[in-house]
Amino acid sequence: MKNTFGNSILVTLFGESHGDAIGAVVDGLAPGLDIDMEFINHQLSLRKPKGKIGTKRHEEDNIKIISGVFNGKTTGTPLSIIIQNNDTKSDNYDNLKELARPGHADYTGDIKYHGFQDYRGGGHFSGRLTAPLVAVGAILILALQKKGIKIGTHIKRCGGLSDRNFINYENDINLLNNLDFAVLDDEKSKQMTEKIEETAKDGDSIGGILETAIIGIPGGLGEPWFDSFESLLSHGIFSIPAVKGIWFGDSLDLIDSYGSEFNDSFQIENGNVITKTNHNGGINGGITNGMPVVFHTLIKPTPSIYKMQDTINFKNFENCKLQIEGRHDPAIIHRARVVVDSIASMVVADLLAERFGTDFLSSK
Amino acid sequence: MKNTFGNSILVTLFGESHGDAIGAVVDGLAPGLDIDMEFINHQLSLRKPKGKIGTKRHEEDNIKIISGVFNGKTTGTPLSIIIQNNDTKSDNYDNLKELARPGHADYTGDIKYHGFQDYRGGGHFSGRLTAPLVAVGAILILALQKKGIKIGTHIKRCGGLSDRNFINYENDINLLNNLDFAVLDDEKSKQMTEKIEETAKDGDSIGGILETAIIGIPGGLGEPWFDSFESLLSHGIFSIPAVKGIWFGDSLDLIDSYGSEFNDSFQIENGNVITKTNHNGGINGGITNGMPVVFHTLIKPTPSIYKMQDTINFKNFENCKLQIEGRHDPAIIHRARVVVDSIASMVVADLLAERFGTDFLSSK
Amino acid sequence: MKNTFGNSILVTLFGESHGDAIGAVVDGLAPGLDIDMEFINHQLSLRKPKGKIGTKRHEEDNIKIISGVFNGKTTGTPLSIIIQNNDTKSDNYDNLKELARPGHADYTGDIKYHGFQDYRGGGHFSGRLTAPLVAVGAILILALQKKGIKIGTHIKRCGGLSDRNFINYENDINLLNNLDFAVLDDEKSKQMTEKIEETAKDGDSIGGILETAIIGIPGGLGEPWFDSFESLLSHGIFSIPAVKGIWFGDSLDLIDSYGSEFNDSFQIENGNVITKTNHNGGINGGITNGMPVVFHTLIKPTPSIYKMQDTINFKNFENCKLQIEGRHDPAIIHRARVVVDSIASMVVADLLAERFGTDFLSSK
Amino acid sequence: MKNTFGNSILVTLFGESHGDAIGAVVDGLAPGLDIDMEFINHQLSLRKPKGKIGTKRHEEDNIKIISGVFNGKTTGTPLSIIIQNNDTKSDNYDNLKELARPGHADYTGDIKYHGFQDYRGGGHFSGRLTAPLVAVGAILILALQKKGIKIGTHIKRCGGLSDRNFINYENDINLLNNLDFAVLDDEKSKQMTEKIEETAKDGDSIGGILETAIIGIPGGLGEPWFDSFESLLSHGIFSIPAVKGIWFGDSLDLIDSYGSEFNDSFQIENGNVITKTNHNGGINGGITNGMPVVFHTLIKPTPSIYKMQDTINFKNFENCKLQIEGRHDPAIIHRARVVVDSIASMVVADLLAERFGTDFLSSK
Repeated sequence: MKNTFGNSILVTLFGESHGDAIGAVVDGLAPGLDIDMEFINHQLSLRKPKGKIGTKRHEEDNIKIISGVFNGKTTGTPLSIIIQNNDTKSDNYDNLKELARPGHADYTGDIKYHGFQDYRGGGHFSGRLTAPLVAVGAILILALQKKGIKIGTHIKRCGGLSDRNFINYENDINLLNNLDFAVLDDEKSKQMTEKIEETAKDGDSIGGILETAIIGIPGGLGEPWFDSFESLLSHGIFSIPAVKGIWFGDSLDLIDSYGSEFNDSFQIENGNVITKTNHNGGINGGITNGMPVVFHTLIKPTPSIYKMQDTINFKNFENCKLQIEGRHDPAIIHRARVVVDSIASMVVADLLAERFGTDFLSSK
Repeated sequence: MKNTFGNSILVTLFGESHGDAIGAVVDGLAPGLDIDMEFINHQLSLRKPKGKIGTKRHEEDNIKIISGVFNGKTTGTPLSIIIQNNDTKSDNYDNLKELARPGHADYTGDIKYHGFQDYRGGGHFSGRLTAPLVAVGAILILALQKKGIKIGTHIKRCGGLSDRNFINYENDINLLNNLDFAVLDDEKSKQMTEKIEETAKDGDSIGGILETAIIGIPGGLGEPWFDSFESLLSHGIFSIPAVKGIWFGDSLDLIDSYGSEFNDSFQIENGNVITKTNHNGGINGGITNGMPVVFHTLIKPTPSIYKMQDTINFKNFENCKLQIEGRHDPAIIHRARVVVDSIASMVVADLLAERFGTDFLSSK
Repeated sequence: MKNTFGNSILVTLFGESHGDAIGAVVDGLAPGLDIDMEFINHQLSLRKPKGKIGTKRHEEDNIKIISGVFNGKTTGTPLSIIIQNNDTKSDNYDNLKELARPGHADYTGDIKYHGFQDYRGGGHFSGRLTAPLVAVGAILILALQKKGIKIGTHIKRCGGLSDRNFINYENDINLLNNLDFAVLDDEKSKQMTEKIEETAKDGDSIGGILETAIIGIPGGLGEPWFDSFESLLSHGIFSIPAVKGIWFGDSLDLIDSYGSEFNDSFQIENGNVITKTNHNGGINGGITNGMPVVFHTLIKPTPSIYKMQDTINFKNFENCKLQIEGRHDPAIIHRARVVVDSIASMVVADLLAERFGTDFLSSK
Repeated sequence: MKNTFGNSILVTLFGESHGDAIGAVVDGLAPGLDIDMEFINHQLSLRKPKGKIGTKRHEEDNIKIISGVFNGKTTGTPLSIIIQNNDTKSDNYDNLKELARPGHADYTGDIKYHGFQDYRGGGHFSGRLTAPLVAVGAILILALQKKGIKIGTHIKRCGGLSDRNFINYENDINLLNNLDFAVLDDEKSKQMTEKIEETAKDGDSIGGILETAIIGIPGGLGEPWFDSFESLLSHGIFSIPAVKGIWFGDSLDLIDSYGSEFNDSFQIENGNVITKTNHNGGINGGITNGMPVVFHTLIKPTPSIYKMQDTINFKNFENCKLQIEGRHDPAIIHRARVVVDSIASMVVADLLAERFGTDFLSSK
């Protein structure tokens, strides 16, 4: 399937960082979904670099939907999104074209594409391609909200600092989705921002852990083998640049626990099935159980740093030194969270469409 | 795709724990691959419960290949594996059929399948279905070995105890693949076994962390978006029952590190490209870089415990108590490791077939 | 996807003519569908060779469902069907193993599988693999009937003789589905049978044209591009051995007509949308319009004939003569029709499941 | 898969006739393929309406490749093609938006998309979407030519007139690919053109039969079941608007023949395997045998005619009359042939990439 994701709702991503444009095609959307450009732009703004903690490349992200929408609603045919590339300074990359930036895909891209890849700004590997993903996610997130499903992510850990846990999922999600820097505890938010700023000053970078909750999701989504909910979600999440890990519920915190501690007891509460705890993160046997789906995404430190690094020239196979210039992020974790939400919306919408039919999301 | 995995080499899994038989179909295998029944049985033996640390259900796992093999070699047509179910004691499950065992898929299966599922022994969700997966993996692992690619997994952590790290990948992998209990440090192996035995005596269960290395894997495998190596591997790994997390390289240990620490410097060594460190676990930008692929799999405590638990009857929607009987594992981490190796072999073989053609694995 | 077909309901076929067994796995079936072994066997009987007009290989086709069924209903998990091979006379094929039977896949199989294929009785290419397809079809046909959708096929042309056209679709379909030799006109049926018998006596073979109607099918199934109803159906139909063509509605008869003749006028009749004519065979723009879907399948003469033929030995690359022995069909068109119905049921059920959700077929 | 086609090389089509733009994304192309804009435009010119026998809508088809190409070669990442829509006269369609043009997808589109579809000019169903397909095909056709594989199509029959058969495939293909009106016999070409002009004058339309040959194609492509070469090709071909049938080789002409006549005898000629005849159209058992692949495509009369027709208003469910205005083709068979070639190139390139690896097409 390569650069396409999904079964009932398929998302195809294309473009290079310094090419004409980047974009996405979404196929399988129910006809009649609302296209709310304001909300799409709001979601894109959450992804944008800001202040001292972001790259100085400022793209307008003027998205244009060139197909699949008519009179403000999806038509049900493939919806295509295009974002022109404007603020490209390709000169910064000319001297890099044969050097493998450590932690980046320059070398692996060269092996895979035999030197034909567009090396400028990371080319097709660029984090910039998450912009159309966020636009697609915005359409789905809005549609899911109308079905009572909400998604939110906070920075659980960054630079050795930890945010508080979710207390009330719905309130916290509403809060997060209007924060530029998605940390629930104000004090910790300030400290993490300062930590990123300090790291930036030092020409270095940091990563961290995101925690995401999906509430209102019905039970019964996912398959026993291969297409478990965890399988599909992790498949999508690992597409996001800099993601190196994912785990569900409290599984990592309880790594040394006993089954008697880890098992989530079922209970009838007000006629509904719940679990008393949610260590399994809302999933049993690969299938959602109706509790909030909770997962953690591990983000490595951004590989672009301004310090001198050892590396190779992969054309002449010589060792060399490299100091990256250009405009880069000292951390991308605060920008990545809306991408995580978007991927999560794709997985949930896809499974709903498969289980309840292609028109489900626009049904009353 | 549901219960099918892969793009060029497709594996479909079927069967229920207490049905007639379980099995798998593999399509897309190169013609001419060796079928070594001794090796397949060796791999299956690594999955078998043993001594006090395993369930007392003893299945012979007499596998039968009923298609796709002729004169001891693969034909290139779909290869089907059947394992009869013999030692089934379904009576143990009759009293459970309306009760949701905590941590199990009884309730989620009931939502998904509306009560039509075969509830006996976990039905299609049973860990027993990993037996045909291991048989499929054995065929692929042998074929990969002939291409210089080796896979090995050890129990990195279990019951609060940690194994030593990999020192020499090749030696350690060879050692592990002949150990019933895959721990590199003998003393730690003994302690972990004792810990599992104690836990069993207490009617409880534990989990842990597996660490897997794939060596000899060529660079250039994986896609920038959606089908990154991490995406495909995690997709497969999360199919294994009780897996709740995966992370690559040292990313979790270095969660608070700086980019200048986490980046793996490239270096030319004896004419080959290597990285000085391998914190990224052999993958940059979703694509293998030729270094060992290293990843960790988080296994939750086995949900089957003998202690009294709170739960619900999902037919009459009443709260109730449950004490599981039958034959269960106090830990499955030592049995899961060969399943992890098998899934890893499926992902690697699939990507090799896609990149180098369907006949690659049997080519000279 | 190779030997797998479908999107929401996936069918995987495996086995070789003279191997241990042949079979199929169906994934994505709604839970709760009835398994009526009597009806499955009835459908299989329509595929069986009979009297002078069939091969003398008599397989019992004792099908065994080894997974995915519990208490007489589908569970929703992969359903596997196994048919043991018993009446195999492999000796007949030993002298053929290096000779390319004209019109058969011996030579193309050898190129594709590099000599590792099971050459006995056509191996994986054998028409015998249509038996599990028919069993799968039987399950779906029954489920579709409960939704008011019926499928029937007659031999439109064979040996220069033509059957009458469909008059009343429902009556004719009911009639056909209980006929061993699916011809609507009794006199023509007798003549065609005699023609096949004569051909058999002469050691030769014939083909013909099947016409299939699907009634009760809702409008709106299929996609504008690539997954048009015609695309999906033809994809499946061309899997059937000896099929060399397919066309929809009256398109071939009206090949020289004008648009003003070919266009089917829409009309409101009793509050329903119908078309006055149905030259387009129930499909406009790749999507069903609610009228009967009608298509024709072209079956070439069975390639197995008893006459001396020129051919090659594909091992030593020499020209040679070949006279086929063994047990073969002078025509397979009368056996193929139930296979066509089965493939049609797979396409319709798949599209319904995709559009209306995975549980649609078992919904009230 | 919906509006996506292929396994190793995936083509996704998007856009509406009167929307901003139409386009395609191609994923899985080998890196390093030449992008020859002149050849792409040549192929597009073969699709353009011309003179009295084409619609008066004149689109410039200014294609723009916005990703996946760098320095004149494919990069190996998704290649996106955009064609702006300029010469749109949507007013012509406003009065049609609730009327079902007979033979068109207006009504079926309305059922499928519940009234949200873009009805202008056929929307997503428009034949205009074949322009990006032809552009994609041009890239592949050029790459295949470098591997010695050529594709050509002529109008075998149109308006009751028949072209001569292929005599020398290579010469004839070369000739056809430079003809605006692809008929081998000059006299017949003139007569067919006149026939179309007459039909146009009468406000009516005609269809016909295309015959396509693919030469230089290696043996061994295709699968025994479901993904036979015929299955994949027909799947693609039936995406083309107005296609209602396909058959391979001489199968239709020889519908009443015997096996002894239809079987193609194998023969060694100059060390190569050939068949003396090619009634099977180069395919045995679903797999190419190295002979030219020959198939016929049935094109129905263009449904847009200027005559008064009976139809319905599908909003208020009333019978009504309809006289189509606007700019339409009296025949599209001469424009469709390059689309058929393009689809054929997609199928062949896809199977080559699957069998020989993703880089095969750009390998030396």
